[in-house]
Amino acid sequence: MAPLKLLCMPLSTCTKRVIALLEELQVPYEVVTIDLTKGEQKRPEYVKLQPFGKIPVLEDPDTGITIFESRSILRYLANKYQDKAGSLVGTDAKSRALVDNWLEAEGQNFNPPAGNIVFERVFKAWRGQAADEAAVQKELPKLEAVLDAYETILAQRPYLAGDDFSIADLSHLPYLSLLMTAAGVSDPVNKRPHVKAWWDRISSRPTWQKVSQMK
Amino acid sequence: MAPLKLLCMPLSTCTKRVIALLEELQVPYEVVTIDLTKGEQKRPEYVKLQPFGKIPVLEDPDTGITIFESRSILRYLANKYQDKAGSLVGTDAKSRALVDNWLEAEGQNFNPPAGNIVFERVFKAWRGQAADEAAVQKELPKLEAVLDAYETILAQRPYLAGDDFSIADLSHLPYLSLLMTAAGVSDPVNKRPHVKAWWDRISSRPTWQKVSQMK
Repeated sequence: MAPLKLLCMPLSTCTKRVIALLEELQVPYEVVTIDLTKGEQKRPEYVKLQPFGKIPVLEDPDTGITIFESRSILRYLANKYQDKAGSLVGTDAKSRALVDNWLEAEGQNFNPPAGNIVFERVFKAWRGQAADEAAVQKELPKLEAVLDAYETILAQRPYLAGDDFSIADLSHLPYLSLLMTAAGVSDPVNKRPHVKAWWDRISSRPTWQKVSQMK
Repeated sequence: MAPLKLLCMPLSTCTKRVIALLEELQVPYEVVTIDLTKGEQKRPEYVKLQPFGKIPVLEDPDTGITIFESRSILRYLANKYQDKAGSLVGTDAKSRALVDNWLEAEGQNFNPPAGNIVFERVFKAWRGQAADEAAVQKELPKLEAVLDAYETILAQRPYLAGDDFSIADLSHLPYLSLLMTAAGVSDPVNKRPHVKAWWDRISSRPTWQKVSQMK
């Protein structure tokens, strides 16, 4: 089995989403750096693989499959390595449906406000630009509303899709991590006890401790 | 087999996404209207099913599974009725990965600008409110960039994920339809010949002709 090839930048949030799962699954993979600071994601040979010029892209030499979109890569890996993935992706029709449901909820509900705040407060700072604080203030109530729903769910069970950590929880780690630290938005988590306990559980995983440090 | 129950509002875009697939699959389903104009999506018994207070929700009496998020419901139905779904979801590992990839691309790339423009120009008009045209102008270049990528892909194949119509194409219909009509944003499609030919192919399907009229 040739190692999977991930075309990416390990500092990037969407890249960390995929690497976190690769580390959970303990499957061999190789990182091919696409340097966004040099515009390598817009080079013709890369755009052939990822028409939107974004990272990451997964190439699987075993199957000849090349895919992009980080959550789609999560589903691909979790299905390919279903035996290793177990409850990460769900082990029966019901748990698989719930994991997919909550992975999609992350992508459609949590990610837009979280991503916009991190863009303003963190990614702009990395480029020496100032945050548009009016934009941040517009996104905060949306994030709070999402976390209200999470608080209700997490009062009933330890993880979003049930009793076990899954790719739905994992998918929150890159942006939630930056929200809690560099973006200075920890209050919305800290003031909701069940969300806070969930954050502590998912962020203390050894795999995430390792992946969050990657640059 | 008891019919599937879809808690929804057939006028809504996310509801139409799911009904379009139910009609393609020709499986029995029952619509339970959740009237957004009466705030029924915020009632406690509904929020127990959908903690964000949004529509639609699918209840499957055969399996006892209740899920939400329209794209997650698409995946659930396509997997449950895999024999009927065929190329709608993909028939081998590679085509399934590509369909999922492009369904996710719709959700993450196309939907944000398309949804924001439709919100401003259509949903606000339904409520008697004026569009924020500055917001529309900010979203248009993002939509154009997405359609540039689509034009490249659709020059190579008739549908986003390959030779066949799939849930990735289908998922575009509700918002793309409103963009082309009520939102008055048909130029970005019409000026790209391969995107235009794809739009003609997917929107002329008898199922969509039926679903688009539902109120």
